[in-house]
Amino acid sequence: MDLAEVARRLELATLYTDYAACLDSDALEHWPEFFTETCRYRVTSAENYEAGLPLGLIYATSQNMLRDRVSALRDANIYEPQRYRHLISGIRIDRETAGALEVSANFLVVRTMQDGGMTLFAAGRYIDRVERTAAGWKFARKDVVLDSRQIDTLLAIPL
Amino acid sequence: MDLAEVARRLELATLYTDYAACLDSDALEHWPEFFTETCRYRVTSAENYEAGLPLGLIYATSQNMLRDRVSALRDANIYEPQRYRHLISGIRIDRETAGALEVSANFLVVRTMQDGGMTLFAAGRYIDRVERTAAGWKFARKDVVLDSRQIDTLLAIPL
Amino acid sequence: MDLAEVARRLELATLYTDYAACLDSDALEHWPEFFTETCRYRVTSAENYEAGLPLGLIYATSQNMLRDRVSALRDANIYEPQRYRHLISGIRIDRETAGALEVSANFLVVRTMQDGGMTLFAAGRYIDRVERTAAGWKFARKDVVLDSRQIDTLLAIPL
Repeated sequence: MDLAEVARRLELATLYTDYAACLDSDALEHWPEFFTETCRYRVTSAENYEAGLPLGLIYATSQNMLRDRVSALRDANIYEPQRYRHLISGIRIDRETAGALEVSANFLVVRTMQDGGMTLFAAGRYIDRVERTAAGWKFARKDVVLDSRQIDTLLAIPL
Repeated sequence: MDLAEVARRLELATLYTDYAACLDSDALEHWPEFFTETCRYRVTSAENYEAGLPLGLIYATSQNMLRDRVSALRDANIYEPQRYRHLISGIRIDRETAGALEVSANFLVVRTMQDGGMTLFAAGRYIDRVERTAAGWKFARKDVVLDSRQIDTLLAIPL
Repeated sequence: MDLAEVARRLELATLYTDYAACLDSDALEHWPEFFTETCRYRVTSAENYEAGLPLGLIYATSQNMLRDRVSALRDANIYEPQRYRHLISGIRIDRETAGALEVSANFLVVRTMQDGGMTLFAAGRYIDRVERTAAGWKFARKDVVLDSRQIDTLLAIPL
């Protein structure tokens, strides 16, 4: 492993760390910036993913659709005082293709309610395609593959 | 820290990442390949581990015994539709001996049932001995030390 | 990213790994050694942290106060047979200042009771200041910012 490869792996770790920090701090307006303009973003279940079913709980095919999603979430104006905390481990480069990397990682999201109750909110696997752009590594595709068939929330939030 | 040491740490991270991905994707037939032929694998409780008791929920002293274990699990034919998700952190080289590393790490396994219910399935510490072989890093010994005295499952699965 | 930067990031990962291992193995007498002599340590809620409120569930302004804390915990002699397991991910250098780094990370602590019951004990974010000393990296400030407003424990333990 040479220094360039080491650096690439640490840069990918930073990408996922920054992504989690963005969501956990409810800085959703910055969330679309982690994607390329022509990205595809999807939240789906492992069952649907393995069956090759295209749709999901959230499905977007551009950075602009992600921005719309955030606007919709803000406009819905549902006061949700809970906090989310992402734990991500096992980041792995599965394949390297021209100008892009197929990367996967395990995630766990813990939700803490205002009364202090904590629950396992979501667990699963990110199956992503990342590209190096002038502004750094971006997600060209992100499949959030949930171990569960559903998530317990009124409005599907970004994961 | 020189580049060789950096590379070694990232290689170990990859070993644990691949190990978790193997189990989480239910690719159990590949699980024995993470071990040396003369390996020792054990799942035990922290109480028993600290008391120096040798046995455990699972105890195997060769790669072949691990293969038998997988066959037994497949033959048992218990349809368990749940999914497991490993989160591993805190990988640490505790000691270096001739040709081998003593490595430990924290793990958490979350189980998702078919109805969507999620539970904390297991937490604890891997206390391992890894050796560099012609086919890469392998576990010569793996002690899966559970914080709990038992795990909630009909047939003990690899962890 | 040059080798010095890579090494620094791996050294920080080791700091958090060792810190978690110290707490999880109940080696509390060694816990103060992770801090500088004039450190500040605090466990607080995200609400209080964001409101700028200074106090917390635990508040200490020197390594000696941390030692006193450990003595008090030991003297309290409450037999607590539970085990704690830290999962830490997303370690990030947020800022670099003269001779110190502002570092944050996500954590999750799972508690296992003697009867085997497991609960989500705490989740949140470490917001730290680390300094390189002759004895390695130390915490000059550690804010343990809990997602919850409280933790379920008789005597607040180090996190």
